[in-house]
Amino acid sequence: RRSRRLVFIGCGTSYNAALAARPFVEELTGIPVTMEVASDLLDRQGPIYREDTAVFVSQSGETADTLLALDYALENGALCVGITNTVGSTLSRRTHCGVHINAGCEIGVASTKAYTSQIVVMVMVALAVGSDQISTQVRRQAIISGLSNLPSNVSEVLKLDTEMKELSSSLIDSESLLVFGRGYNYATALEGALKVKEVALMHSEGMLAGEMKHGPLALVDENLPIIVIATRDACFSKQQSVIQQLLSRKGRLIVMCSKGDASAVCPSGSCRVIEVPEVADCLQPVINIIPLQLLAYHLTVLRGFDVDQPRNLAKSVTTQ
Amino acid sequence: RRSRRLVFIGCGTSYNAALAARPFVEELTGIPVTMEVASDLLDRQGPIYREDTAVFVSQSGETADTLLALDYALENGALCVGITNTVGSTLSRRTHCGVHINAGCEIGVASTKAYTSQIVVMVMVALAVGSDQISTQVRRQAIISGLSNLPSNVSEVLKLDTEMKELSSSLIDSESLLVFGRGYNYATALEGALKVKEVALMHSEGMLAGEMKHGPLALVDENLPIIVIATRDACFSKQQSVIQQLLSRKGRLIVMCSKGDASAVCPSGSCRVIEVPEVADCLQPVINIIPLQLLAYHLTVLRGFDVDQPRNLAKSVTTQ
Repeated sequence: RRSRRLVFIGCGTSYNAALAARPFVEELTGIPVTMEVASDLLDRQGPIYREDTAVFVSQSGETADTLLALDYALENGALCVGITNTVGSTLSRRTHCGVHINAGCEIGVASTKAYTSQIVVMVMVALAVGSDQISTQVRRQAIISGLSNLPSNVSEVLKLDTEMKELSSSLIDSESLLVFGRGYNYATALEGALKVKEVALMHSEGMLAGEMKHGPLALVDENLPIIVIATRDACFSKQQSVIQQLLSRKGRLIVMCSKGDASAVCPSGSCRVIEVPEVADCLQPVINIIPLQLLAYHLTVLRGFDVDQPRNLAKSVTTQ
Repeated sequence: RRSRRLVFIGCGTSYNAALAARPFVEELTGIPVTMEVASDLLDRQGPIYREDTAVFVSQSGETADTLLALDYALENGALCVGITNTVGSTLSRRTHCGVHINAGCEIGVASTKAYTSQIVVMVMVALAVGSDQISTQVRRQAIISGLSNLPSNVSEVLKLDTEMKELSSSLIDSESLLVFGRGYNYATALEGALKVKEVALMHSEGMLAGEMKHGPLALVDENLPIIVIATRDACFSKQQSVIQQLLSRKGRLIVMCSKGDASAVCPSGSCRVIEVPEVADCLQPVINIIPLQLLAYHLTVLRGFDVDQPRNLAKSVTTQ
């Protein structure tokens, strides 16, 4: 699979999962990844060529926009790869090759375990594609051992349940919520905000922390709750500086950090801190999304909505 | 300039301008365009190669993130092109070649005329790059005549000022605002929402209309104001169906459409309609952003804020 370009194509949560995997795929394969929301690719009739590999991500394998984008990519001669949770689905039948994530049946409309499993699968694909490089061997070994420890780290982060319930109760009356992430955790910000929108019906927006000063900073005041994801990775010091800027505008901050980092992210002690286990940087999004999923869950229950069947939505969107 | 890939790099409004120009650049040059927020490219250390052409967009030509991304692209051997409003700026001096947009000095912090001028310049660049193709000659001629009529269409759309002022007064108490666009006008949605955030300090989010049913639809109720951009282009019928879905959830809709299309976009008559002049599809974003800029302006004044100097923001962000 030596392509000029990888094109990741999905909708909603599946798009976010691909976005979470993107930095690591780029790093390990050295191939540029272009992100495409399926409907946008179709709207633009964007260029797809024979030398592209198009990777389609869909939990159900029946998402209409994604399947139409697949038709389009097949017509244009790209190599098409599917990542789905449903054996025998249209996506798995019509792609040239692919992977089943085996996350088990998802019952709620809002995707949760499928999201984390999609990321894990894409990391494993990147490990496989990049496996012939000597220069990345140490890095690959570290990720592989990170993968085998992932289940115990997930169990640990699930213990934050009570803490997230308590946090939700302080947020139920808020009108809006912002979530700032960057690098590996840009997707965590988008996906966390999407969960809050979907099930808790609260206007929540995920943002790239690096774009904060190019506009969104104007919104910051003492009332608007802001979640900042600042677990340990190469962007950590940049996130520390983002937190400082938000604090100097008296932002109402909730900071997610690696265990033991509370004083490093918030020396003043004026932020609410959520500590999560530290794992290999590219796997951190799998851990970090869980407290936000719990937050969305509790917010939904406390606000009196149905967490499995959100207003206006269907599990798999089989119409365009 | 026969590159494998164009990479558009910018921050905030300049990023949105590049996004607005992207579909047309792809169409006329046949070269895939990857969009990069400057800080995100740096955070990820994303792949940039000798066969890439990197196009840097910055009004001031001094935006720190964009200049750092330029250093990074230069180190990686890409051909670097600058699009700036400032003769002699760092960006214009350090790129291999580039264009000055000559929009004149911008006084307010929130970019307005620089945004529209950036789009026009990128359309002109696409016309120039694609000029040797016979198959696009008719299309090119239509765009060129559209460009020469643009000033009179801009004058016409500015007459909506009173209407936008009146609309703003109905929105001042809203907590949130959503803006849905797609295709050529996805950028219009992002940029319109960014203006409302920046100056009116109201939480406003721009969204891809095609993603609506993958989550955001849950937010829709009779209170949340939603602007839908549905001017004439190849996506028009898809936007009509989006409007129908929103109306069936009793959404509080404000629809922007081409002159004379009020009954086509809202047969029930229950939406508020803003009619704008119809121009060539790829130039429509230049027209469509203007009523939203006026809306943000009036919202700001009515809410009692300073429109030239928004809270917490600087005109050009010269720190990382």
